[in-house]
Amino acid sequence: MIGAMQTGPQHHHNQSKPSRPSPNPSSSGVPPRVPVTSAHMNKPLPAPAANQHRTHPLHPSPPPQNYGFGPPPSQPVRNRPQPSSRPPRSPNPPLAVPDDDPQQLFPLFRAANTSHTGSLTEMELGSALVNGDFTSFHPKTVKMMIRIFDRNSSKTISFDEFVSLWRYLAAWRELFDRFDVDRSGRISLQEFENALLAFGYRLSQPFVTVLFTTFESKGRQRNGPAHPAKMGMSFDLFVQACISLRRMTDVFKRYDDDRDGYITVSFEEFLTEILQLQD
Amino acid sequence: MIGAMQTGPQHHHNQSKPSRPSPNPSSSGVPPRVPVTSAHMNKPLPAPAANQHRTHPLHPSPPPQNYGFGPPPSQPVRNRPQPSSRPPRSPNPPLAVPDDDPQQLFPLFRAANTSHTGSLTEMELGSALVNGDFTSFHPKTVKMMIRIFDRNSSKTISFDEFVSLWRYLAAWRELFDRFDVDRSGRISLQEFENALLAFGYRLSQPFVTVLFTTFESKGRQRNGPAHPAKMGMSFDLFVQACISLRRMTDVFKRYDDDRDGYITVSFEEFLTEILQLQD
Repeated sequence: MIGAMQTGPQHHHNQSKPSRPSPNPSSSGVPPRVPVTSAHMNKPLPAPAANQHRTHPLHPSPPPQNYGFGPPPSQPVRNRPQPSSRPPRSPNPPLAVPDDDPQQLFPLFRAANTSHTGSLTEMELGSALVNGDFTSFHPKTVKMMIRIFDRNSSKTISFDEFVSLWRYLAAWRELFDRFDVDRSGRISLQEFENALLAFGYRLSQPFVTVLFTTFESKGRQRNGPAHPAKMGMSFDLFVQACISLRRMTDVFKRYDDDRDGYITVSFEEFLTEILQLQD
Repeated sequence: MIGAMQTGPQHHHNQSKPSRPSPNPSSSGVPPRVPVTSAHMNKPLPAPAANQHRTHPLHPSPPPQNYGFGPPPSQPVRNRPQPSSRPPRSPNPPLAVPDDDPQQLFPLFRAANTSHTGSLTEMELGSALVNGDFTSFHPKTVKMMIRIFDRNSSKTISFDEFVSLWRYLAAWRELFDRFDVDRSGRISLQEFENALLAFGYRLSQPFVTVLFTTFESKGRQRNGPAHPAKMGMSFDLFVQACISLRRMTDVFKRYDDDRDGYITVSFEEFLTEILQLQD
């Protein structure tokens, strides 16, 4: 139900104020797969700022500006540059999405909840989340959503959690559309670079290419030979890439007390962080 | 076809010298799922050394003995301990497994290759690899096998690559059986600790517990409520844990020139390594 290359209303038929859900939406066993577009929200998101390089609320924790650009400390004695100014404090996670009626999501939730347990398993959520071109979300994006929104550690998503998750993805969809300037429904390398700059990342061209290729290729791996891969990053992989980058950056900043863009970590610290970032 | 809690020959019926494969093994669409045991090999592996703490050939790259135990360098001036002795040079990857007849694997390979393309896709390999209790391999273990054995970067596994892969897993099975001292078919925390020690790792108790729990819980996540989770680490997750630890250690050692158990990495180095370790 997420994604949407289309900006028009033609894919919203399952969603437009269903004040009365269909009699047995879950009995068919096929949940509606409705891509989310910004148009689903009752009120539009605030217009993008003229200066796209401001920090977006979904990324309240940008890296310091010198990350990746400072001179390396020399070996073996660390001759570090003076600590640069600290990055801005992280604002509270805002997710300033409009105040739509959560009940309009209930038919979708109930249809996806084929187990009738009142909360979505990973598999149920995964079958419900689709991009604008109706490709499924990558399993890791689904896992990420559960990790972020499963507030009671049940490994499942209750309806309230689902409403939050859906709003979060709608906000991401708004961002995705903003950076998909050619309206291809995919994020190109250049569009990805612009997005990262807008999020406050100053990364080298080679690294941005590695990052882009890493996530774009996940889409190619997922689509078998029957589905010729489209160029560019799909919505769910754009979200996954940005959240992954954010998580990795947060870990790095936790160790980089002096904000010089270099950290010193022990063997077990290194192993532990990698293990946690892999989940 | 991998794993095997059983040490007897009762599960080898599809495998014992099939000089003439069944007429249409692949036409049924159901590949035989034969767990590998050490008994599948024509010759047994060399008996375990009396001193199990020797370096096992599957782990030719143990970390230095002080990893995780040295004093941390003080901040901000690095007051590092004297570099310890370098770890032993990595021997050539040996995989000293017996010289069985590869042709006995062909019926298995052909049955798994439902696409009849002559090489196994990730999905085909995943459907063919099973543990001793006939649970499937974790998808990430399957991906690891392809990464290791797909020598021509085809993303698939040819028959020759499959033979190598199977021998590799058989050697791992031998190791697994060696450390599964209570013959439970699972590796307990204590058995895992013993294995890591034997591989040359000196890790803190809390970290070993984190590592064990991380991989053991992957088995629980995979088995839904219909399959009550067994305690301990299955064969495929033991392999995955050990290979993951090995890869992370190799990355760490690449940066730890002075072998003091601490590395200093830049932001982009950190991000790049994590991305690569996640694939």
